[in-house]
Amino acid sequence: MKVSGTPYRTIWLADDAEDGIGAAEIIDQTRLPHQFVTARLETVGEAAAAIRDMRVRGAPLIGATAAYGMALAMRADPSDESLGAAYDLLMAARPTAVNLRWACDDLREVLTNLPAERRIRAAYRRAAEICDEDVEICSSIGDHGMPLIREAWESRGKPDRVNVLTHCNAGWLATVDWGTALAPIYKAHDAGIPVHVWVDETRPRNQGASLTAWELGQHGVPHTVIVDNVGGHLMQHGMVDLCITGTDRTTRTGDVCNKIGTYLKALAADDNGVPFYVGLPGPTIDWTVSDGVAEIPIEERDGAEVTVMTGKTAAGEIMDVALTPDGSSAANFAFDVTPRRLVTGLITERGVSAASEEGLLALYPEEV
Amino acid sequence: MKVSGTPYRTIWLADDAEDGIGAAEIIDQTRLPHQFVTARLETVGEAAAAIRDMRVRGAPLIGATAAYGMALAMRADPSDESLGAAYDLLMAARPTAVNLRWACDDLREVLTNLPAERRIRAAYRRAAEICDEDVEICSSIGDHGMPLIREAWESRGKPDRVNVLTHCNAGWLATVDWGTALAPIYKAHDAGIPVHVWVDETRPRNQGASLTAWELGQHGVPHTVIVDNVGGHLMQHGMVDLCITGTDRTTRTGDVCNKIGTYLKALAADDNGVPFYVGLPGPTIDWTVSDGVAEIPIEERDGAEVTVMTGKTAAGEIMDVALTPDGSSAANFAFDVTPRRLVTGLITERGVSAASEEGLLALYPEEV
Repeated sequence: MKVSGTPYRTIWLADDAEDGIGAAEIIDQTRLPHQFVTARLETVGEAAAAIRDMRVRGAPLIGATAAYGMALAMRADPSDESLGAAYDLLMAARPTAVNLRWACDDLREVLTNLPAERRIRAAYRRAAEICDEDVEICSSIGDHGMPLIREAWESRGKPDRVNVLTHCNAGWLATVDWGTALAPIYKAHDAGIPVHVWVDETRPRNQGASLTAWELGQHGVPHTVIVDNVGGHLMQHGMVDLCITGTDRTTRTGDVCNKIGTYLKALAADDNGVPFYVGLPGPTIDWTVSDGVAEIPIEERDGAEVTVMTGKTAAGEIMDVALTPDGSSAANFAFDVTPRRLVTGLITERGVSAASEEGLLALYPEEV
Repeated sequence: MKVSGTPYRTIWLADDAEDGIGAAEIIDQTRLPHQFVTARLETVGEAAAAIRDMRVRGAPLIGATAAYGMALAMRADPSDESLGAAYDLLMAARPTAVNLRWACDDLREVLTNLPAERRIRAAYRRAAEICDEDVEICSSIGDHGMPLIREAWESRGKPDRVNVLTHCNAGWLATVDWGTALAPIYKAHDAGIPVHVWVDETRPRNQGASLTAWELGQHGVPHTVIVDNVGGHLMQHGMVDLCITGTDRTTRTGDVCNKIGTYLKALAADDNGVPFYVGLPGPTIDWTVSDGVAEIPIEERDGAEVTVMTGKTAAGEIMDVALTPDGSSAANFAFDVTPRRLVTGLITERGVSAASEEGLLALYPEEV
């Protein structure tokens, strides 16, 4: 999507690459929303550090960065030893990231049986493919979701704006391009539908206030930041036409595990007859889990994410400030599960499905 | 309640007052939670400034401070002119505060028909009465609400802790002592019931993370700060035994207008069978309103409360930091309305009532 009018992806081959082989470049997401800075990855060590330090985040983008990390390792040294070391280094960068494992395994499989002299080119080709596949999946989610926004707008007589509420960041910054929850919004905006987005700030890590607001603003999509407490009031008063969020993990039955607070918004949508959609790539469906609330363990993170906030001072300096009194502790549950009964539909790259086992299996018959 | 082991009210006559006449003292709540500072009010101008600058806040405390403001004005000059000027000055301090108007009107009525030489003593006596009446009301709310906590604890077989979730600050800092929502909690704690409080941080103004966490901590009540997104997850997993919040305004039918986000927590309580109670003094019931969602206008405040956060730096300095990208605007709705169907009961100074017109009129038959 666009940054100051220029189209970007979140990861790309540097302009000075020769014959498809060279450094990779990323947007340093730890500097957002206050500074737009790109960074150059010359080595697998730099790629692993970018993942570990969360300069890249979001499951698809982590996978894409790992793939380029393997390619960078091959560029430096295409030996078996180098391949194994690169794999281990990348896998340790964020041990719980599913896409990281997937991309590392994929590249290792592609490369292991090749003679060393062919590995460099194959690794770069596969990294580029992984990026392009992600863009295609997200673009398809956008194509399938966009008509939902168009219909909401048209059914109200094409007013000046159609209001979508989103939670957290499931935008292009979390993927290679387009995003998941935001892909339908970008497609609608680009098609001339006057979409306006209510952006939940998404405490404690503020991915909405920082990343979602930034990427929508850069692409020119009208939006308004709200605190996470506001959505219910907006829905009570007809100010939300539909909700679209992303998901970290969807059960085979359609329960949605997503950023903490998603469940509260889904309750409000249900209470007020507002459609609640979830955008997701098929690969994030966990076909082994049936009951999301009972079965999915919820990560507890450091309480300091609650008690300390990062922002920009009047002088332009990035600084941490403590919000709570000394001695008050905090609990920090990172995700919650929205039961399928509250979900209107799942927007996938293969179409929109009911949030149910039947609905998902109709789109993914290979999982029956 | 206690601060570092010493009992305090939020406003009191200074120790060096002679024969019940002297300066008033307050806790400067703008310095909380990072600093505990008391301030001395010598003049009506200082009292008005304390209200205007929100060094005192909470409807009951604003009323009590206004009453002492009138007394301070009489101490300086008990003339009709001084009385009228003090009234105008205080009324302008926070024009929409209902208790401010009530206290100013009350004092003016008490004083107007007295000869000037009797006004000083009468004003101080009435200010003290207003404070004592508020303490009595809040203490009664606590007495009526405490058994709800005790029953929740006992019905679960007296576990190590009974969990109450609260939103915003309806504690003693908002009143003269005890608070409204927190009064049952203090009574339970003082009675030896092992109550633990989940404290919603309450964005955007963070009254939970700052004031509620501070006052619970100072009194020794175990508590954990959470972001506003977490309550639903806790309730899904049996980690909340009951919710108690305050209210700014309750309709004659039992709808509850309270800090933004209350409605979302009430939805989650309803979805998980968790009792949802609201503590309130009878005088905050608005007998003229029947449909809270349709009739109560919701204040919109400055978006900067959303986009800028105040906290303490590592160096101990209090500083503002911006959270959102330049160019992203914010909407800031201050309250929402929780429909009575989601409210288990209203805890008043006269007892616990159903959230319904019948229930409230049974406690307040004079309003039939």
